[in-house]
Amino acid sequence: MSSVSITPSHSDQTRPAALMHALLSPARIALVGASADPGKNTARPLIFMRRHGFKGVVYPVNRGHASVLGERAYPTLRDLPEPIDHAFIMVPGKHVLPLLDDCAAAGAHVVTIYSDGFAESGPLGVEQQTALLERARTLGLRILGPNSIGLANIHTGCILSVNAVFAAEGLSAGNISMVSQSGSMMGSLMSRAAARGFGFAKSVSVGNEADISTGEIVHGLVDDSETSVILLFLETLRNADVLSSALRRAWAAGKPVIAYKLGRSEIGSRLSESHTGAIAGDDAAVDAFFRSHGVIRVTTLEALFEAAPLAERYVSHTLPASVRPRIAVITTTGGGAATVVDALGMANVQAVAPPASFIDHMAGRGLKIRPSPIMDLTLAASGEQYQDLLEQLLRSDWCDVVLSVGGSSAQFHPELVVRPLIDADKPPDKPLAVFLAPEAQASLRLLREAGMAAFRTPESCADALAGFLGRRPPTQPAAAGASWAWPRGLPRHGLLNEHEASQLLNHLGIKTAAACLLDENAEPHHVGYPAVLKVCSRDIPHKTEADGVRTGIRDRDDLLRQRRALLASVRARRPDARIEGVLVQKMEEGLLELILGYRHDALVGPVVLLGAGGIMAELQKDFAIRLAPVDEENAREMIAEVRATHIVRGYRGLPLGDCDALARAVVDFSRLAAGDVCVAEAEINPLFVQPDGVVAVDALVRLD
Amino acid sequence: MSSVSITPSHSDQTRPAALMHALLSPARIALVGASADPGKNTARPLIFMRRHGFKGVVYPVNRGHASVLGERAYPTLRDLPEPIDHAFIMVPGKHVLPLLDDCAAAGAHVVTIYSDGFAESGPLGVEQQTALLERARTLGLRILGPNSIGLANIHTGCILSVNAVFAAEGLSAGNISMVSQSGSMMGSLMSRAAARGFGFAKSVSVGNEADISTGEIVHGLVDDSETSVILLFLETLRNADVLSSALRRAWAAGKPVIAYKLGRSEIGSRLSESHTGAIAGDDAAVDAFFRSHGVIRVTTLEALFEAAPLAERYVSHTLPASVRPRIAVITTTGGGAATVVDALGMANVQAVAPPASFIDHMAGRGLKIRPSPIMDLTLAASGEQYQDLLEQLLRSDWCDVVLSVGGSSAQFHPELVVRPLIDADKPPDKPLAVFLAPEAQASLRLLREAGMAAFRTPESCADALAGFLGRRPPTQPAAAGASWAWPRGLPRHGLLNEHEASQLLNHLGIKTAAACLLDENAEPHHVGYPAVLKVCSRDIPHKTEADGVRTGIRDRDDLLRQRRALLASVRARRPDARIEGVLVQKMEEGLLELILGYRHDALVGPVVLLGAGGIMAELQKDFAIRLAPVDEENAREMIAEVRATHIVRGYRGLPLGDCDALARAVVDFSRLAAGDVCVAEAEINPLFVQPDGVVAVDALVRLD
Repeated sequence: MSSVSITPSHSDQTRPAALMHALLSPARIALVGASADPGKNTARPLIFMRRHGFKGVVYPVNRGHASVLGERAYPTLRDLPEPIDHAFIMVPGKHVLPLLDDCAAAGAHVVTIYSDGFAESGPLGVEQQTALLERARTLGLRILGPNSIGLANIHTGCILSVNAVFAAEGLSAGNISMVSQSGSMMGSLMSRAAARGFGFAKSVSVGNEADISTGEIVHGLVDDSETSVILLFLETLRNADVLSSALRRAWAAGKPVIAYKLGRSEIGSRLSESHTGAIAGDDAAVDAFFRSHGVIRVTTLEALFEAAPLAERYVSHTLPASVRPRIAVITTTGGGAATVVDALGMANVQAVAPPASFIDHMAGRGLKIRPSPIMDLTLAASGEQYQDLLEQLLRSDWCDVVLSVGGSSAQFHPELVVRPLIDADKPPDKPLAVFLAPEAQASLRLLREAGMAAFRTPESCADALAGFLGRRPPTQPAAAGASWAWPRGLPRHGLLNEHEASQLLNHLGIKTAAACLLDENAEPHHVGYPAVLKVCSRDIPHKTEADGVRTGIRDRDDLLRQRRALLASVRARRPDARIEGVLVQKMEEGLLELILGYRHDALVGPVVLLGAGGIMAELQKDFAIRLAPVDEENAREMIAEVRATHIVRGYRGLPLGDCDALARAVVDFSRLAAGDVCVAEAEINPLFVQPDGVVAVDALVRLD
Repeated sequence: MSSVSITPSHSDQTRPAALMHALLSPARIALVGASADPGKNTARPLIFMRRHGFKGVVYPVNRGHASVLGERAYPTLRDLPEPIDHAFIMVPGKHVLPLLDDCAAAGAHVVTIYSDGFAESGPLGVEQQTALLERARTLGLRILGPNSIGLANIHTGCILSVNAVFAAEGLSAGNISMVSQSGSMMGSLMSRAAARGFGFAKSVSVGNEADISTGEIVHGLVDDSETSVILLFLETLRNADVLSSALRRAWAAGKPVIAYKLGRSEIGSRLSESHTGAIAGDDAAVDAFFRSHGVIRVTTLEALFEAAPLAERYVSHTLPASVRPRIAVITTTGGGAATVVDALGMANVQAVAPPASFIDHMAGRGLKIRPSPIMDLTLAASGEQYQDLLEQLLRSDWCDVVLSVGGSSAQFHPELVVRPLIDADKPPDKPLAVFLAPEAQASLRLLREAGMAAFRTPESCADALAGFLGRRPPTQPAAAGASWAWPRGLPRHGLLNEHEASQLLNHLGIKTAAACLLDENAEPHHVGYPAVLKVCSRDIPHKTEADGVRTGIRDRDDLLRQRRALLASVRARRPDARIEGVLVQKMEEGLLELILGYRHDALVGPVVLLGAGGIMAELQKDFAIRLAPVDEENAREMIAEVRATHIVRGYRGLPLGDCDALARAVVDFSRLAAGDVCVAEAEINPLFVQPDGVVAVDALVRLD
């Protein structure tokens, strides 16, 4: 299921613009399996399209009825009087495959399949889905689904969907489009958004994503003039390469992408030689993917649409990675503001108090404010004064964003609370967000209508702000990294032994502990004592478990004695393993032990991971992960994210570690993604951070 | 501000029942400073009481007007025709103090002070508040506030509050009462709850809590027959002892208490000899307080009231500390259910798949379900079947709670979705919660009216469930622990030196590393080599910083040499310190290093902390904290909570540590709370966990 399938682009089959037109804005549609019983789900698309004024041509296809809901129906697709763009199939799953030929004969470019019983239902369904896809490719048809609840173009009233949300009398058209891997949640999210006055352009349920992927649809939405913001509801990531290019185009086009993804709590349990896989499951890798593509990820459901006005209005607003975002808070409810400030604090966004110069500035304008991170004007200011303070804050350089929190008047006097916010002169470069503490649906709607970002709960407000403030421009794609040639003499497949792994690291510019590889009887080279002895064998990736390590070797005699003992013990435990020698390594020390990992992730491709050393990265979930390769700014951000690194960054007067060297090592290691040999997994564990450099003490590299 | 003030009980001043009656259900009221202008805040209480049909007597007091809003007004409290129970004061802060004599003369038992300008406004205000309180005590008056937005008795329509929320036409009376340290949030929460059909009994804003505390009001609500559930909105904790006894009474009375507290993100920065203070700030201690008193703490705002039906209906439902809660999920929206399951997973509550026996059982009843943690019946079951599955789940012993998640029909056909839930036969011992994925206000209301727990967001649903499932019966109060006498010969004040600290630990039953204290020139006793040398001085709590530690002492000669060097170095660095000797200690090793801390917390009293060793407890926020003393079950729960302990509890085949001994050490150490000398702070750092015991290697104890 989860592999990076570098699917051939389908642009040679259908020109993308034509495909997207047939998909999202078809003019002639067939509804295959449209029921004549208005109580059935399969009657809904026709009902919805008539209700919402679709102006195109709709052909119901129904074997048993000559008319459906008062409209002429056709027994089969082959009976239609003219070619169609798009067929929507609602028959039982087992009847779908034979229909594809009819779809092609009817001229359809796209077939959306609501029917289920495919990959989502088990191994037999996977087979059926494969057969479906093969037939579609042969016929030059593109498939949305199967198991898709359909799609909708709200502007044209083209509702190819059975989702009950479209039963609403007046669907409001707007500039938000949504792509969802969950059909039911597409409807639920739209219903919540509609109740708040949010309007939609397109919504698409991708179902099993057998053919047309989320990424392809995002490409289409980037080109869609009615779409300004793109929302994604995801359960996993498929075809990451297509999505990657679509997200880069969305960024370039100034169309923000906001994502809610399930699976944060999932335990990524996959077999892995290194620990990197176990530490950072699927979700962490997907998170890195979002981050590297300028996607705002939210973790509260309603923030998915509530964040849209913020992202859209301040689309070009990004902060450098090194900045801890500062927020100025103005309110008439201290407690209400504190609920957001507290949640923001948990997300590392700090509310800042106004500096003395600003307090003086406001005093000069007749308003006394206190040097508190929450500027509470309850009963202390008129609407005009509130508006004036807001305007002055929006022109201040000591904060990155302004939050206004409204109290009970937001419920009882919407115009009073909302007016200063709407009337205020708002510069385009200083984001403003609003949270209303009481039940205040009318005020929230007024703010929405004015294009302002307003939030219903402190949690979604903080979530959206933290996500928005953490947004960065997309990083360079892996292919753009400088490529390099694999060192001669090193294997190009399978596991490297530790000696080879060290050579690879040195080739990348990473220092490893001084070492030499000895045969069983060879005279020891001098690497310095105390030293470590390790068995060297590509059959023994985990040496300690095979009793293959001896530490604290004092001198030559000790070395000879311990070598004998080590080899005897390993051979007894692992008689099958080919022993390639014994590695003598200088014992190193460090101020901090870290793990530096790399893997070619099944969902998102190459990723690099920096984590607390030993097993603490996993136990404490103390790691940072990014798509590889990373640049030095990204590497520094990763270092700052790993909590354990505090102890070498000026914590409680402890000695400083060489974080410059650490950042360079992360960058160098991440270049495993840019070589000409595919590295499946690699891990330095431990990597010692020293006062004047970093040194890799053990490494594991597995090639494809 | 934040000290455990063991205030004298006021029961000798006013009998609690009479006080609570005058506070919450007064019959005769004076509104001091009631405005004649209906547009002013201070006109509101009278308007509110007339609107909501208060049947008692209300006397507006207004110096300038003979009538207020059509009712006779009185120039001063001394002009009233009969004694009153309760005065509500709305005049500017500086005029409040002189009014207290009038209040007493008018017969008032309680004075609620809306006026601000007291402790919340700075040092001058603190003085004024102190003066106010002294005068009130002299007069035998009790004060609610100052800076309180007032209180309300919804059943009688007695609204002594200026909060706009009471402007609503029909306030619904119910069985929920709220105590809030934030006036504005009391209103905001009530308005949100009212929009969902929740009714209230009493609501009280405690303002600055100068006199009547949250705990006293909780006592009153325990006795209030109209209150079944108590909600707390808190910014801090004051008078923890009174609240403690009130919460125990609430538990005994079967009245659940749910709390939302600000300050989760606050960095607990206080000066401290030990690290324990820095690791666990105020909020962590308050959290321990809640946990030890059976309080459900929520962290999402709306969960505060949404959790009420769950807590009330299943008030006697608690799980043993050792159980990881299991939840069965039934839904018609797989994606919607997954949003809650994902959030629950983050809170360590696991959704469980039905076992084969249950699948067979349901197949026998004609319903095919899959062994998935989300039982998705979309389009696969009738309402009757949904109800049947629900009823069978509610009778299953393989889950602790059942969650039903509704899809789009919850919006368009409330009766269809809600009916099976309401009609289902629901045993009182298996909690049921409902989340509705779409916008579905009507359905949420129907469920509320049926007394069911229904949630509007996946976040609040998961938050409330996790809080509810983590609720435990109150632990024994500190005073109930077996008390013990301080060892003879140990100081009873100030810092103990390490040798004395070890003796204290041994007295409590905790093993310490074998050691002896040597004079500068004394012949070494034998404790075993390798050994550690440490300077012993109560003036040097942090020995390493004074160069006062030598490790790896090999033998007697080495010891003599190192002792000289150590003393010379320490004397050079700390010429002021009185050196009491040199401690020779056997070097110990362990599978895991932990920190075990204790402090007499300013807010909640004695607490015990177990955390990851070294500085990792602080860096990784990897610690567990409880009120001291703890029993062995609590100690085991703490051990499980500290992530670092995984490595001695069967992680990846690593050797097991002696967690029984660890639990006993936590229990023994927590008994510092039950001695006859007040220990301000104590810390074992490190405590080594070994395969067959635990051993304290360094300890610090500071007495009051």
